[in-house]
Amino acid sequence: MEGYDSSKYEKMSVATDLLVFTVEDDKLKILLVERSEEPFKNALALPGVFVGINETLDEAARRGIKEETGLKNIYFEQLYTFGEVKRDPRMRIISVAYMALVPLKKLDFIAGERTVNAALYDVEEIISSKKKLAFDHKDIIKYARWRLANKVEYTDIAFHLVGEEFTLPVLQKVYEILLGKSLYKANFRKKIAPMIEETEFVTSGDKHRPSRFYRRKKEM
Amino acid sequence: MEGYDSSKYEKMSVATDLLVFTVEDDKLKILLVERSEEPFKNALALPGVFVGINETLDEAARRGIKEETGLKNIYFEQLYTFGEVKRDPRMRIISVAYMALVPLKKLDFIAGERTVNAALYDVEEIISSKKKLAFDHKDIIKYARWRLANKVEYTDIAFHLVGEEFTLPVLQKVYEILLGKSLYKANFRKKIAPMIEETEFVTSGDKHRPSRFYRRKKEM
Repeated sequence: MEGYDSSKYEKMSVATDLLVFTVEDDKLKILLVERSEEPFKNALALPGVFVGINETLDEAARRGIKEETGLKNIYFEQLYTFGEVKRDPRMRIISVAYMALVPLKKLDFIAGERTVNAALYDVEEIISSKKKLAFDHKDIIKYARWRLANKVEYTDIAFHLVGEEFTLPVLQKVYEILLGKSLYKANFRKKIAPMIEETEFVTSGDKHRPSRFYRRKKEM
Repeated sequence: MEGYDSSKYEKMSVATDLLVFTVEDDKLKILLVERSEEPFKNALALPGVFVGINETLDEAARRGIKEETGLKNIYFEQLYTFGEVKRDPRMRIISVAYMALVPLKKLDFIAGERTVNAALYDVEEIISSKKKLAFDHKDIIKYARWRLANKVEYTDIAFHLVGEEFTLPVLQKVYEILLGKSLYKANFRKKIAPMIEETEFVTSGDKHRPSRFYRRKKEM
């Protein structure tokens, strides 16, 4: 980056767009807002914030998540940066997309306090529906959906969608939802055994056999 | 991103920094340039270009790779976006890092025509050395090194470092270099068998038993 006259390269706006995922009713859901202004008035959109000149990308993402959900301390990671020239009709905006994964009960807790027009939507429905989303946001959601399905195979990302303590049937269901397919219980348990440890708690088991609660192993 | 007064958010420069990897002398190498100007005069740096206002991120990366290596049509992918506030002492520059992987023989071919002060450096040496690189470029290289080691496990990324036709010992060596460990020949061959197909060619085999050349299966 030397020998370039930076004045020849106009500066751009940079935003973080936020994909807040959770599992509700055995479905992968995403937090979307309905736009009240043009462009794309009334269309669904990812929540997002512009990156301040003295703010890192992670800080902007954290601020946006807090503004939309009231939550601090939730898991998030940078997904991908989208930079099509005409992706926003107003001006050139580079979008650094972030994924956050949060157990539903954390979102439930703050649902009543939400001041913005945000709600949870079924990701598969959003992707397969012909309904247009604002900007390139449907493409961003498709990309994130693909990445989640991949990452669940070789990382512990699914654990962020269950609480700190969980039963194995609940964890398996989250894996199945992210993978989009059923798993054999025995194979699943063998795969995740090295990642988890028992707690002293069991479910009440009034109808079923009681299930033990587990947690993520600390040392991992 | 509504309800925000975009004038409150200053625009920024956006650059693509380029990590061009190859394998030379059984080592993972990266293309670096020596800076001839301040800041970080004489330090090694990743090549990079500013993103033009009418240019996508991928287009900027492709242009940068062509300017540095003369090569078009080589494999590259977006790695990660780095946005620390003070990463460049001159001004706020967001860096969208891209990785390119190229077989050495393609780089050899154009080596004589390079007009810039670029050369190949041993990645492990760069990472373990105390010598400082310009900007946050050593951190970017460390991140890319980690990502390569991960991706080689579950993608076909290693194939981009061998030519279109390759012997299995050569491919195994590339896997080992990226993973940073030796592999058992039988296990390796079992793992990659579904990804490759035989060609009609074999090595001359004057000293060793001749090795067959393989290629990546087309349908994958």
